[in-house]
This record gives sequence, C-alpha cells and structure tokens, in this order.
Amino acid sequence: MKAEIISIGTELLLGRIVNTNAAYLSQRLAELGIDVYYQTTVGDNPHRLAQLVRKALIRSDIVMLTGGLGPTVDDITIRTLAAMLGKKLVLKRSILKNIKRHFKARHLAVPDGNERQAYIPQGAKWVANRVGTAPGIIIEHRDKVLICLPGPPRELQPIFEKGIVPYLKKNFRSGYVFRTRTIKTTGLPESQINIMVKDLLELKPPTTVGIYAKLGEVDLTIMAKAKNRIAAEKAIAVIENKIRSRLDKYIFGYDEETLEQAAGHRLIAENKTIAVAESCTGGLISSRLTDVSGSSRYFIRGAVPYANEVKVKHVGVSAETLKRYGAVSKQVALEMARGIKSIMHVDVGLGVTGIAGPTGGTKSKPVGLVYIALVTDEVSMVKEFHFVGSRADIKWQTSQAALDMIRTGI
Amino acid sequence: MKAEIISIGTELLLGRIVNTNAAYLSQRLAELGIDVYYQTTVGDNPHRLAQLVRKALIRSDIVMLTGGLGPTVDDITIRTLAAMLGKKLVLKRSILKNIKRHFKARHLAVPDGNERQAYIPQGAKWVANRVGTAPGIIIEHRDKVLICLPGPPRELQPIFEKGIVPYLKKNFRSGYVFRTRTIKTTGLPESQINIMVKDLLELKPPTTVGIYAKLGEVDLTIMAKAKNRIAAEKAIAVIENKIRSRLDKYIFGYDEETLEQAAGHRLIAENKTIAVAESCTGGLISSRLTDVSGSSRYFIRGAVPYANEVKVKHVGVSAETLKRYGAVSKQVALEMARGIKSIMHVDVGLGVTGIAGPTGGTKSKPVGLVYIALVTDEVSMVKEFHFVGSRADIKWQTSQAALDMIRTGI
Repeated sequence: MKAEIISIGTELLLGRIVNTNAAYLSQRLAELGIDVYYQTTVGDNPHRLAQLVRKALIRSDIVMLTGGLGPTVDDITIRTLAAMLGKKLVLKRSILKNIKRHFKARHLAVPDGNERQAYIPQGAKWVANRVGTAPGIIIEHRDKVLICLPGPPRELQPIFEKGIVPYLKKNFRSGYVFRTRTIKTTGLPESQINIMVKDLLELKPPTTVGIYAKLGEVDLTIMAKAKNRIAAEKAIAVIENKIRSRLDKYIFGYDEETLEQAAGHRLIAENKTIAVAESCTGGLISSRLTDVSGSSRYFIRGAVPYANEVKVKHVGVSAETLKRYGAVSKQVALEMARGIKSIMHVDVGLGVTGIAGPTGGTKSKPVGLVYIALVTDEVSMVKEFHFVGSRADIKWQTSQAALDMIRTGI
Repeated sequence: MKAEIISIGTELLLGRIVNTNAAYLSQRLAELGIDVYYQTTVGDNPHRLAQLVRKALIRSDIVMLTGGLGPTVDDITIRTLAAMLGKKLVLKRSILKNIKRHFKARHLAVPDGNERQAYIPQGAKWVANRVGTAPGIIIEHRDKVLICLPGPPRELQPIFEKGIVPYLKKNFRSGYVFRTRTIKTTGLPESQINIMVKDLLELKPPTTVGIYAKLGEVDLTIMAKAKNRIAAEKAIAVIENKIRSRLDKYIFGYDEETLEQAAGHRLIAENKTIAVAESCTGGLISSRLTDVSGSSRYFIRGAVPYANEVKVKHVGVSAETLKRYGAVSKQVALEMARGIKSIMHVDVGLGVTGIAGPTGGTKSKPVGLVYIALVTDEVSMVKEFHFVGSRADIKWQTSQAALDMIRTGI
C-alpha cells in the first residue's frame, strides 16, 4: 500500500510555516503499515496542483492532501480536484449546519465565504471538523483514494484520528502493522551511545533502531513491522531488553515520558520533598519540575538567588565562601543546596550555580562551567559540568543534568 | 528565477523528523528574490531520487538538495547525481583534510566511511563545513545548478549563508528583492486583530500582510517584493506605520525580538530592579527574564513559593489573607508582589498565583484562573485572567501576560 502527501499553501513555499503535518501524517501512516513514498508541497496554484495530483494517482494508492480548504478564493483544493475528476460540487446541509454552529458558539455571524466550505465533490464522504469549519473529505476514484484535510494541525489531527484512521483501517488493510518504542537517555554523549549500540543501529528491516540526539538527551527508537501487533511488540521487546541492559541507568524514560516526570516519580517513590536554589538556570529547573501535574506533592519552593547578596541573605550561603571561592564554585553550589534544604525543612536540597554566558566568562571560569549540588540527609554531592552552546543551550543542559541528579541521586 | 527543494531521507518519510530545512531555505530564497515552486521529500532511494531530479532540472533553474551526504551506504545523493549526469567522482584533498581535522579536534580517529565524503563530482564546486564533515556541493549543469547541502540544520545553515548565498547573488540575480518585517503583539486575541487590520490582510502582491497566531501572541508579517532594497523597505514602512498606529501599545517587538527582552529593555530604561514571586508558573517567568543576556543588571531574585507555608514565611503573605481569600486570589497576588518587593528592596515586585491544572480547579476558581500583581513605589495593580489550554499552555500564557505587565506597567 503506497501513499503520498501533498501539502498545499504558498505560505509553506515562502517558508513562513514549517510543515509539521507531513511528519505527523507520515508517522501515523507508517504505524498503520502504509508506506509514504513522497511528500510534496505546492503553492495555491490550480494548474501545478492538478498536475501533481494526476501524477500521484498513477504512482500511489492513497493521496493525502493538506491545506487549501479555507473559505477564501485562494483556497483551491476542492475546486481543483472536482474539475480534474469531472465531478460537480454539491451542498451538504449538515456541513453547513456545523459551520453555522461554529460561529454561533463564538457569538459571531457566519462570515462571507465560509458557506463555500459546505460544498464537496459529488459522491465524496466527509468527516466533521469539531474545532474549525472545513471538514475532512474522502474522494474515492477507481481503486485509489484522495483524502483532503484542513491545514491547521489542531484541526487536521482530530479529523485524521477520528475519521480517516478508521476509514483507512477498513479499506486499506496493509496486512502488517508498525510499532515504535522510544528509549530516552541522558548523561552520555551521542558518540558514546553510538559505540555501545552500534550493532543494533545496523539492523535491517523489519526491525530497526534509530538514534536521535537532542540537547542533553539521546533517544533510541526501535521500529518494528510485523504481521500483527503481538509480533511487532515481541520484536521490539527483544531489542529493548538489549538496550536496557547496555544503557541501564542512563535511561530515564520511554516514549512520551519526560525527565521532569521521571524526577517527580522518584521523589514520590521515595516520599521526599524538594526545594531548589538555582542561579544560572534562572528558574528553569523549578519551572520544569512544576510542569508535572501534581508536583505540589513534593515541590515546596524554588529560589532564584541571582544577585550575590541574595545568595547570602536568603539561601544561606556564607559571605566568606562567596568571597573565597566565587559565586560559581563547588562550595557555593553545596551551600546553596544545604541552605535551601535547611531553611525549607525539606528532604532534598538542590543548588545550581554557573555561567550561562554569552558574557561573564573568564579563563579559569569559562562560559558553560556549571556546578550542581544535591543534598539529602544521607548524601551530599556536587558535580562539575562544562557545557557548550548558547545561553539557552547551557541553561537547558544544566536543567537536564540537575533533573537527572534528582532522578538518580536520592 | 525558479527554484525547488528536494529533501532526501527515509527518516523524513517515516515522520521521525520535521523538515525545518525546507522552510528555512524557502524563506531565505524568497528574500533573495528567488521563487520556490516545489518542496519534495523522497527516501534514500536512488531510482526515485534520479527521477525527481530529472524532472526538477526541466522545470526549475535552481535545485536545492538537502540530506543524504553522510558517510554510510544509505547516503545516496552524490553517487546518484554523478551517475545521472555522467560525471566521475574525484577526491578533493582539502575536503579530506577538513574531515581529518574535524575528528582530530575531538580526539577521535576518522571512522570508516567518512573519507567518502571527500569525493565530489568532477567539475563541481564545494563549500567547507565548519561544523560537520560533509561539504556543500555546487554542480553546474548547462544553465541550471544543483546545490547539495547536509541534512543537519546546524551544518546546513552556515554552509548556505557563507557559501551558497554569495554564489546565488553572483550567478542568479533575480532583478528584485524581497523583504519581510514581523510585528509582534500580545494582549489581544487574533479575531480582534483580524478586524483591526482586515484591509491590510487583503492586500495583494507586491506587498502583503500575513497574520500568525501563537499562544499568547499574535504576529503580523509584512512581505514586500521590489526592484531594490530601498523600495522594499519603503513599501514595508508604509504598512508598518499603519499597523503601529492601530495596534500601538499591544506591539512589544519586531522580528527576532522577544517579550522577555522587551520587558528587560523597559527595566533598563527605567533603571529599575525587579524580584518575582510566582506560584502557578513555577519559575517560568524568572527563567524567561533571565534568558536575556545581561539580565543580572535588573533581575535580583526569583521565588517560587509553591506551598502555602512558604508564601507566608518567605514571601510575606499574611496567614489571614490566605485563609480568608485562598491562595489563588487578588489579595494574595498583591501581597506576594508587595512582600517580595519589600523583602528584596527592589523597585518592582511581581506576584503571580493561579491554577495551572489539569487538576485543582473548583467551580468558583476554575483551572486557568490567574492573578498577576505588579507593585512599584508609584503603582500597585492586579489583573485577573482566564486562560484555557493544557498546564503548559496556561503557564506560558501567564508568563506572556506577566512580562507584558512589566513592559507596560512600570
């Protein structure tokens, strides 16, 4: 079963928008066992669109079109397809009702032009849009199918999931399924992980492994194609076990799990509370910890003692330590962690100090130098890091390292 | 002058990666006055790639190819093009030297296969890669040109800017230039701005205006095509003045400027220091304020008093106010702002409390209810907001509103 994706919109060709729809649909089609051979973007030009669709109907079974379903004359998708296939446009009263309801809920009159969205090619199926006004449209043409979806991702995705996936499952069974599993790690560079799982990265289909390096994180994705779900999951489990045994403690989560969630789970599991005193990260660690719903169970207080006086007065760093070792030092990180822990009567104190740059670095204390201290009743540790990158990059990498110290250190 | 972009990589067709290169190159080519007519993605398949390039050489003057320049056998771009054009691959010693230098700087041996990247089609030009190992390659073919760039954006972008832009300017002068100007606003919904600039959104080329809604922000982008830079900038200035007079105080910045920068500029201009006590945003406001290099000039301290006791003990909220009005109330926001201002002896105190959800809401205090208070020696104000969306959405919108209160309120 071959598919291709055609994205329509001059704003895409001008680079005003990044085409996330193509990636979204490609991934979901792959999971349904449907191979995508081409993604193409064209502008709001009926001639070039018709040419491309003609070609697509020859080489692919499923043609997914995104965009160009809006209410203006620039929105050409439906008219172009209808003309090309020699089909009349017919008014669908239930689509029109949906459009009217959409505007009524917003206390607005139906703007000129929006009624056009209720016209679809004769014989076509449609899927209601619960977020916007343009429906999803399914046009069957001989043994092929054209599927039109609105451009905005928050409209496209629910229509695809609720209306198109069931249609494809029913009509375009591929005979196999596709499953993925992402294993997320932090604390090792990509080059190191590359060496540790080199044999797995060289696996050939039906089961393969990809490596994706992000800032302060390396993900491994296992992809398996199999006759059915159970076989695919079995194939994934075999590889997953190998990766787990090799990367072990560097793995913080799977699929959609975040590092802040992993740190939070650990705090809940240990029944511990935490307070954070962070300087160079400026609140990022507290913000990430509290991104997790329910974090008020363990997160008691964040402090961003930016100025030196504040470190002394409010986080319990001694003026002498500051003077002797400087604000960016092992000693100050430790005193920040100890200070916030004892002031707040929590189980875990985290202290972070460093130079995020781009200015403020010296030869002995360059931009990217960061100290992170973690103090509990049992342990007291401080780590030195040398990060590279922009100010935002250094802040992010510091937050990754700090969250990982919570995850592994308490 | 017509161009098209061909992105090569099975990981794109699997939806594992979002194609940001196509948007980047499209935007930059538009700015150079070069129209992009197609963006196409194909997998690591020599046959389909050759077919597509053949077609592209007929319909376009400039064919940009991204990806497939890596050291493995899956990287097919150069071999496919050389075979297609009947050109031999020749070793370039200076590219090889660059590859060796790259690994030496990382204390690594040159891995098997990387030497392949030093072979380019006979007669081709190349542009050094200062970040990775694959060079940019320029292949002139009759009156057309094929330009190959490595897939990773952080390698592609510098090669494009330093090597390809000068080449295109010299060889493919289009006779016109393209300029854009983005005007960034916050505080008004998209629908409202739509009405206020409706006539401008309907403008036709050569000067047009686009509207782009983000979370807590609406951007307007003016695009002008003209004979030369001065004419384009003049055309933009005319529209920009109209937008400025209509949206006025809702405009916080232009082009790459961020709201946290705008807030910082205001603090510097007023020569004021600030401290932040934020509860529901969990440190996000402090983190964004300190994302600005040099923010230590005005940002003194952030506090994330998550637990109620902490609000009382460390930020100066009275236990009575907490009991009487609840943690999420106008009164507590104000006391947080006043408290942090007086404890820290700063000029501006910001207090933020709210319910980020998804749990914790009640009928009288639903998820999304947020109070932001700003206190200076002169003014004392508190605003109530009702945001919708996920926990992260509500946090972000709150930080937008808070930064904007700093920008406009001091």
